[in-house]
Amino acid sequence: MSLFLSLTPRAEAWDKFKQYIKVGPHESETVNICDAIDCILAEDIISPADLPGFARSTKDGYAVRASSTFGASQGLPALLTLRGRIRMGEQTKLSLGQHECAAIATGGMVPEGADAVVMIEMCEAIDDETIAVTHSVAPGENVVGAKEDIASGTLMLSQGRRLRPPDIAALAAMGVPEVKVAVGPKVAVISTGDELVDIWDTPLPGQVRDMNAYSIYSAIKACGGRPKLWGIVKDESLAIQEIIAKAHRESDMVIVSGGSSIGERDFTRESIEALGDPGVLIHGVAIKPGKPTILAVAEGKPVFGLPGHPMSSLVVFNLFVAPAIAMWMGGTLFRRETQARLSANVASIIGREDYVSVKLRIEDGEVWADPVFTKSAAISGLVCADGIMRIPDDVEGVEKGDRIRVTLF
Amino acid sequence: MSLFLSLTPRAEAWDKFKQYIKVGPHESETVNICDAIDCILAEDIISPADLPGFARSTKDGYAVRASSTFGASQGLPALLTLRGRIRMGEQTKLSLGQHECAAIATGGMVPEGADAVVMIEMCEAIDDETIAVTHSVAPGENVVGAKEDIASGTLMLSQGRRLRPPDIAALAAMGVPEVKVAVGPKVAVISTGDELVDIWDTPLPGQVRDMNAYSIYSAIKACGGRPKLWGIVKDESLAIQEIIAKAHRESDMVIVSGGSSIGERDFTRESIEALGDPGVLIHGVAIKPGKPTILAVAEGKPVFGLPGHPMSSLVVFNLFVAPAIAMWMGGTLFRRETQARLSANVASIIGREDYVSVKLRIEDGEVWADPVFTKSAAISGLVCADGIMRIPDDVEGVEKGDRIRVTLF
Repeated sequence: MSLFLSLTPRAEAWDKFKQYIKVGPHESETVNICDAIDCILAEDIISPADLPGFARSTKDGYAVRASSTFGASQGLPALLTLRGRIRMGEQTKLSLGQHECAAIATGGMVPEGADAVVMIEMCEAIDDETIAVTHSVAPGENVVGAKEDIASGTLMLSQGRRLRPPDIAALAAMGVPEVKVAVGPKVAVISTGDELVDIWDTPLPGQVRDMNAYSIYSAIKACGGRPKLWGIVKDESLAIQEIIAKAHRESDMVIVSGGSSIGERDFTRESIEALGDPGVLIHGVAIKPGKPTILAVAEGKPVFGLPGHPMSSLVVFNLFVAPAIAMWMGGTLFRRETQARLSANVASIIGREDYVSVKLRIEDGEVWADPVFTKSAAISGLVCADGIMRIPDDVEGVEKGDRIRVTLF
Repeated sequence: MSLFLSLTPRAEAWDKFKQYIKVGPHESETVNICDAIDCILAEDIISPADLPGFARSTKDGYAVRASSTFGASQGLPALLTLRGRIRMGEQTKLSLGQHECAAIATGGMVPEGADAVVMIEMCEAIDDETIAVTHSVAPGENVVGAKEDIASGTLMLSQGRRLRPPDIAALAAMGVPEVKVAVGPKVAVISTGDELVDIWDTPLPGQVRDMNAYSIYSAIKACGGRPKLWGIVKDESLAIQEIIAKAHRESDMVIVSGGSSIGERDFTRESIEALGDPGVLIHGVAIKPGKPTILAVAEGKPVFGLPGHPMSSLVVFNLFVAPAIAMWMGGTLFRRETQARLSANVASIIGREDYVSVKLRIEDGEVWADPVFTKSAAISGLVCADGIMRIPDDVEGVEKGDRIRVTLF
């Protein structure tokens, strides 16, 4: 057993690890766009038609030939002959000439001969047949041309995009009612440690409940992965090796959620090495917390050894597992981040990235981050933290008042 | 038909509206904590026991009586007698005296008589029975006391909290395997407008697909609500009234996604008024886009009239519907927000809040927001926007370089 791990800087560890991750999507399913929100698109979406497909008004008012209004003013309005009203959804047969107009609502089809719409606020009905226009409009004003919004054949949404409500609107508009979305990887979560008992059991003195498996499970789910709990394995070489090998065969990724006994760490590492090439790429990352992290790939499947402290485990999950799941699905990671100003000095050391839990509050319209200082295994610190700030490895700390970025839970 | 709506400032509209929303949770279900991620907690969670429940080491090293190490240095180490090794998960029977120690791993139970742990890096084995300690430790150092993390009876998580991975860890640690979470409201989405066709149909000239129903559906889902599409109703007074009344009976909230014909707006308003008291509270909000918004409550159920433009519809959803859903579930709205610097001047007018789509990019480590300018009905503008910035109603615009907050889609 070596007491001192050789620590790799975080960015270097990720770069070395990520080249072995097979970029997806590997599996996809076709879903109705109603069910596609927050999913990763597994295909490119090309517009099958011009949109809106007809010249469309963007205002309530009167469709006109713009030149009929040139020079119009409140003192000298242009008087136009009203040829009718365009009904919504109607393919109008009207054709307008000079000094003619037709009533139109927002979204209505601009008739032949017209090239602009005058807003209703700038018009007055003189009688049933005559409209006075008090402002001129330019050709194209308040009109979207037939191909102006989206031309047929345009790449609208690329594979890998996380679909948001406006994207769903665009898919609906284009008449794409179903899309292929990436199916998340099957991720096995194995808990190791003789001190662990299941959360349904009552721990004896010396024992604790297996909390990390559940937070990791939920974090995998939130990333779009398909987690499975493989239970608690006792600190014994053969048992660890067997369960890791089985989970590796049946899953796309494996997470070994670390207990903290020294022997078990070695068993874990050896069991991961035995899975196949290239094996353990990184054991020890220059971050705090999260130092004893293992990053491995075997037969194309990522395998992670996560530290036993609950906050460390989540920090390492966010740094390495979440982006690996996103890559596997062919997307990019969506981080919930915000900016804040730090309310206290926080010391660090050169050569190590520190991740510090913070609680956010708003004061005078500004977001402030209060560092949460607790003992490292504390559960109380978990529930009061809104997110985590990073202190880069090239500074000795950050100062009160500095603007920082916070990754939110 | 009135051309000019009486416009209410956004904050005032919300204040007037929200007092009629019945704060929830109204319905809850019991779920395994595995399935509770991002759910709204529908009960307070009080710790049923002390945690960790025993004095626990936070480091790998040796458990000691701190006073045995006082004055220890590299030049003059304290020599301690090794009494044994504490195994993980074991309720140790050891009792340490002065000048004695026991090997312990992180998470191990600190034995009787010991009050601190010396990190392994500060110790050296002289022989099988003797450990040299080169640094002193203070009482309590590297140890979490039995009740120190969480005392039994502590309110750990309050009703209304959105559960995040660290909360799931805390629930697991406390032995709370199931929690009550809020069930979202049933939200009916009714589309009005003679120009609309279903997304499975091919529109004729003058017609467009009913895109807003789908983006609103997905946005409701993302907020935790239970959306249901009630289809497209034609611009005809009786048809609108009937479907709104039926949806109101069968749902907890109703959204009428506006077409754009003028007659239909009046039918919608009248139909909502007919549902019951207090009826339409707001018709017209001083925002752009989103002016023709209707906010109503009938028989305790919120009813919304959303504008027909796709981006307007989403802006109004985020401002009024999303927080109403959160209140109904007894939680607070979680907005995905970020800060950015604006890359161009954007004009507005006093007395109106403007909501402008922006695209985000990172340059020199700073997040910049580029305003997306498109014609108001544009679908192309939807897919290229990362979020929306607000220009308050008391300024004439925001300037290039200003720091702004962006609500992300």
